[in-house]
Amino acid sequence: MGDGRATRRRGRPGYDRERLLAVAVTVFNERGYDGTSMDDLARRLGISKSAIYHHVTGKDELLQLAVDRALDGLFAAAEEAAAAPGRAIDRLEHLVRASVAVLVERLPFVTLLLRVRGNTAVEKRALARRREFDRLVSGLVAQAEAEGDIRPDIDPAITARLLFGLVNSLVEWYRPRGRAGGAQLADAISKVAFDGLRNPRATGG
Amino acid sequence: MGDGRATRRRGRPGYDRERLLAVAVTVFNERGYDGTSMDDLARRLGISKSAIYHHVTGKDELLQLAVDRALDGLFAAAEEAAAAPGRAIDRLEHLVRASVAVLVERLPFVTLLLRVRGNTAVEKRALARRREFDRLVSGLVAQAEAEGDIRPDIDPAITARLLFGLVNSLVEWYRPRGRAGGAQLADAISKVAFDGLRNPRATGG
Repeated sequence: MGDGRATRRRGRPGYDRERLLAVAVTVFNERGYDGTSMDDLARRLGISKSAIYHHVTGKDELLQLAVDRALDGLFAAAEEAAAAPGRAIDRLEHLVRASVAVLVERLPFVTLLLRVRGNTAVEKRALARRREFDRLVSGLVAQAEAEGDIRPDIDPAITARLLFGLVNSLVEWYRPRGRAGGAQLADAISKVAFDGLRNPRATGG
Repeated sequence: MGDGRATRRRGRPGYDRERLLAVAVTVFNERGYDGTSMDDLARRLGISKSAIYHHVTGKDELLQLAVDRALDGLFAAAEEAAAAPGRAIDRLEHLVRASVAVLVERLPFVTLLLRVRGNTAVEKRALARRREFDRLVSGLVAQAEAEGDIRPDIDPAITARLLFGLVNSLVEWYRPRGRAGGAQLADAISKVAFDGLRNPRATGG
């Protein structure tokens, strides 16, 4: 997707916009966005600051590209889930699985998104999109509860937060190890979230 | 506990070691530990750097005090759980509830702990203590699985991570609102973790 622009704004050979973004996101995740200067990025990339400015207008644009990569994935998952057939709880499970897939495929971008604290306009916009996503999740939870499929003894807002707290906690420890990882993880999270850890065949304590 | 030292190393009136620590942790959480200088702390506290050095040897000691506040609480919870009667799954549930209580009571300290990335000796020690805590959790999960009380179709290491991923995700959104919050939250998390979101009385989709 970034190819057209990379051609228009060509920098030093060896970096296109996409590779620049990948390195920038790694550095932001290591040092924090606020703690990273354009000098830090230039040093890590081994190019000059002006070479970076051939590709992007600045740090802000890199952050914008990165968080949109994460958010676009999550919203695509939400749209897919909304269009899925069946009861709300099935659409919610679909969304959880699709979100895990987005986290696994776009891990550095989602990690950065989840650390955004909201000091700049780009960060505020990212937080607003996150809240919009949270509202979609809460809506599905409320609908599933109305349909009698989700336990009624927990506040739906807390339920929605715990559900995506569980999904998002992946970024703290998941590290890619081959293709099987994502599907296995989506399965584990879906089982824990919807059915719990307790062995359904246990005799009880 | 800090009173003895606060008396020994008295700073400017209005700040004892405990209040200094509270403000420092707030600033670390806002700006990141790496992104906070002693100058930033002095500015926020409205005192000179040398007044801070009356209380602590530097930024490192403040971080050490803060993460130990979190870790000591979590290890006390783990010891309490280990000594509790009953099956491993009951001790695990006890640990989850007690850990939620620690998170709620010591929220800024645990938030800081969970963001530690390991660049300095203090951070490396904190990460080592976190790994030790994770091993205690994994041990309980493995024991509960051996006793047949935890579902055998998810890897115990993943199960342990998801369980505390769920607990730790609290720091992302929980904000204290009165005393009832903690117990209600511990209850919600325990229900979701052990029994899942699905309504046990639902007819199915």
